[in-house]
Amino acid sequence: MKKREITILGAGLVGSLLALLFEQRGYQVKVYERRSDMRKNKLSAGRSINLAMSVRGWSALEMAGIKKEMEDISIPMLGREIHMGNEPTKFQYYGKNEEAIYSISRGELNKRLMELAEKGGVEFFFDHKCEEVNIDTNEITFSTQNGESKVKADLLIGGDGAFSALRTAYTKKDRYNYEQFYVEHGYKELNIPPGPNGEHLINKEALHIWPRKNYMVIALPNQDGSFTCTLFFPYEGTPSFNSIKTKEDVQAFFEEQFPDAVPLMPALLDDYFENPTASLVTVRCSPWYYEEKSLIIGDAAHAIVPFYGQGMNAGFEDCRILMELIDRHGDDKWDIILKHYNTLRVENGRAISDLALKNFIEMRDLVADPEFLRRKKLEKEIGRLFPDRFNSVYEMVSFSNKQYSYAQDCQKAQDRLMAKVLADPTFQNGEIDEKEKPIIENWLRDYEEEVSAFTQ
Amino acid sequence: MKKREITILGAGLVGSLLALLFEQRGYQVKVYERRSDMRKNKLSAGRSINLAMSVRGWSALEMAGIKKEMEDISIPMLGREIHMGNEPTKFQYYGKNEEAIYSISRGELNKRLMELAEKGGVEFFFDHKCEEVNIDTNEITFSTQNGESKVKADLLIGGDGAFSALRTAYTKKDRYNYEQFYVEHGYKELNIPPGPNGEHLINKEALHIWPRKNYMVIALPNQDGSFTCTLFFPYEGTPSFNSIKTKEDVQAFFEEQFPDAVPLMPALLDDYFENPTASLVTVRCSPWYYEEKSLIIGDAAHAIVPFYGQGMNAGFEDCRILMELIDRHGDDKWDIILKHYNTLRVENGRAISDLALKNFIEMRDLVADPEFLRRKKLEKEIGRLFPDRFNSVYEMVSFSNKQYSYAQDCQKAQDRLMAKVLADPTFQNGEIDEKEKPIIENWLRDYEEEVSAFTQ
Repeated sequence: MKKREITILGAGLVGSLLALLFEQRGYQVKVYERRSDMRKNKLSAGRSINLAMSVRGWSALEMAGIKKEMEDISIPMLGREIHMGNEPTKFQYYGKNEEAIYSISRGELNKRLMELAEKGGVEFFFDHKCEEVNIDTNEITFSTQNGESKVKADLLIGGDGAFSALRTAYTKKDRYNYEQFYVEHGYKELNIPPGPNGEHLINKEALHIWPRKNYMVIALPNQDGSFTCTLFFPYEGTPSFNSIKTKEDVQAFFEEQFPDAVPLMPALLDDYFENPTASLVTVRCSPWYYEEKSLIIGDAAHAIVPFYGQGMNAGFEDCRILMELIDRHGDDKWDIILKHYNTLRVENGRAISDLALKNFIEMRDLVADPEFLRRKKLEKEIGRLFPDRFNSVYEMVSFSNKQYSYAQDCQKAQDRLMAKVLADPTFQNGEIDEKEKPIIENWLRDYEEEVSAFTQ
Repeated sequence: MKKREITILGAGLVGSLLALLFEQRGYQVKVYERRSDMRKNKLSAGRSINLAMSVRGWSALEMAGIKKEMEDISIPMLGREIHMGNEPTKFQYYGKNEEAIYSISRGELNKRLMELAEKGGVEFFFDHKCEEVNIDTNEITFSTQNGESKVKADLLIGGDGAFSALRTAYTKKDRYNYEQFYVEHGYKELNIPPGPNGEHLINKEALHIWPRKNYMVIALPNQDGSFTCTLFFPYEGTPSFNSIKTKEDVQAFFEEQFPDAVPLMPALLDDYFENPTASLVTVRCSPWYYEEKSLIIGDAAHAIVPFYGQGMNAGFEDCRILMELIDRHGDDKWDIILKHYNTLRVENGRAISDLALKNFIEMRDLVADPEFLRRKKLEKEIGRLFPDRFNSVYEMVSFSNKQYSYAQDCQKAQDRLMAKVLADPTFQNGEIDEKEKPIIENWLRDYEEEVSAFTQ
């Protein structure tokens, strides 16, 4: 049986990985990308140039056999380092076993995925902006430097990001559910350059956070010794992008709020005024496929805010799940594959989008709260004492391939469990002795009973 | 000062009334409508041909000075008449003072609004389908029978319905919040013709409901003695549009579920198979204006499900509020007018869309529940005893111009109040004696304190 021809919109991370995975299964794949070939151009600055890869991302790369290669260009971050102002920073491990999330360059990763796909025979067409898709005929209209170009796809896949043209066509069909909304914050990229000898000027193995309740700065390490920083800041109100307008405003504001960061950012003012202020969209929609003709994947299906570091990870997981369905059902069972893909992924997309919104509050506010830090410490203690029986929601999301919806379902049960632990004076110092284990075990049984009802 | 020229997309109910209201204020108004002139054509059957006008609708018509004229073509419905099958029907008043909602023909109302607007000098352009709006330049591209036509608007108003082209242009701008979703039910229009002498065959002064938990039929009276009926039915499951497919299925299903309706519907099978199954969309978006250039109104801004009978009423209220803002601030204060319009209406649009979704459950299920009927009876008793101090949420929505958001805010407080009343054995029979008044008054004070925090 002849395999269907695959046409992918978008040569971003998800589109490129997906192309590679299809190619590895013997499919003929064409990828159309709006931008020009990033391998021939300098990456545009000011737009999220590094990412945090965690287990879901690695699992998909492992499926493609390229995990090792990508590990070589990533930097492990073992925890959060919290900058409170003039007091010493606090370090907080992400996992109970020193599991890391990995800072990796978006551009470098994307280029390598394209190289690998192209080497396998995938054809890339750059400077093809998708203007319209007729989802009934799968005819695609591109605008190119040489005018309009039309392509007819067999199986069409929209990996074309948060503003997907394929999804826009879906939204015009009867009974299509669609939602886009923006948080009140925008973001702006800033930069901490390497030290005089190319060294990292702050702890390299951490994701740095300057939490300031309603806003924050974060920093992720790059391989060249620099850190990419991001200011998440409200558009309106005081302080906000709207209220901090002049060079003097910015300088004064940063010196007051981020005194330890200012000396590390010699180009602060240039970065602030030259880099764009970008918005943060959440997109939810359903279904993620149309008949047996097309599907959407990655940000096109579930653009989320970046606060759980799961955008790329969720998109890569979409790819892995889709491949598993093809491997299980066979190359000719697209009715079954697409229905299952939809059933398995829509709900998880919704779950991670909720979790990501919630994590913004955790990052910008709660991580500076001693009671929250005690909870995090006690969660790790419980995980250490009962390694097979307790994983925090953060650990499930970042260090497992369990369903996002399962992690979300467990959240409330964990909140109840931890409320008991936190209220008990025995655990005031955030530690649990061996002899106190039975108290915890008792509560843990209630927790386990509660979560046993949820689907992993 | 020269008044701005008004360009309205859509000559439906809201577009036509709005045109009239602007014209009455000395504005030059042009209206572009996708369809041909309904005054020259037979109205297309099978799509919601009558509506329930309540106080908000009347208030807007009163502002236009045409309330009396429209009353003459409407039929008061004083309450719901519940058809349970083989037992006698039950009648339930909508208001404590026999207030009515009014069944009115969509086509007749629309034609008269157009007539009045045109007589005043409004220009209508039919067969103009809006293909695209450039909201920065206000250039509109229409397709017409004579090819493409371009118009440049001064102040552009989208009254172009649930699938508004102007709103679609809004959704493509950064930071635009937008949501569309469909309930699991669709609807299909059916018909009860007049009796042999043109008389109504069931109570003319009622909105008839055949509640069947997960689905229902309703019927609204028409002036010619007929009733327009609507079946609200799930798309999938059993029973559903998907499961009831053959003529035999339909006949058997209706005879079992709606035995008293079948003899009234001689064309049941033809109607069922000839009339389309239509979907029920909810649209929420924000903001409802763009710079000082355009705004959206009516279904374009807040398509809602029809279960509170508020779609047209909410749209007409938009028109009244917009006119009040113009009258208050002056014809040249469009920055203030549009900001206030947005602030006042977005929240109310969201409130009525929630209330309408909730009322579906009330109509199709709760109205058949004796305990719910007792609550409704007791609400009227409390309203009768304390006429200035208690109005049910239904009364606020249908018989007042109080904000929808206020009615929604009061819902939970009323739920708490009524829980106390329902739980007290004194009021088991659904009646309240004069001597029991102090018990109620005591609880009512708690209720009043709670709702005093809300904005009316």
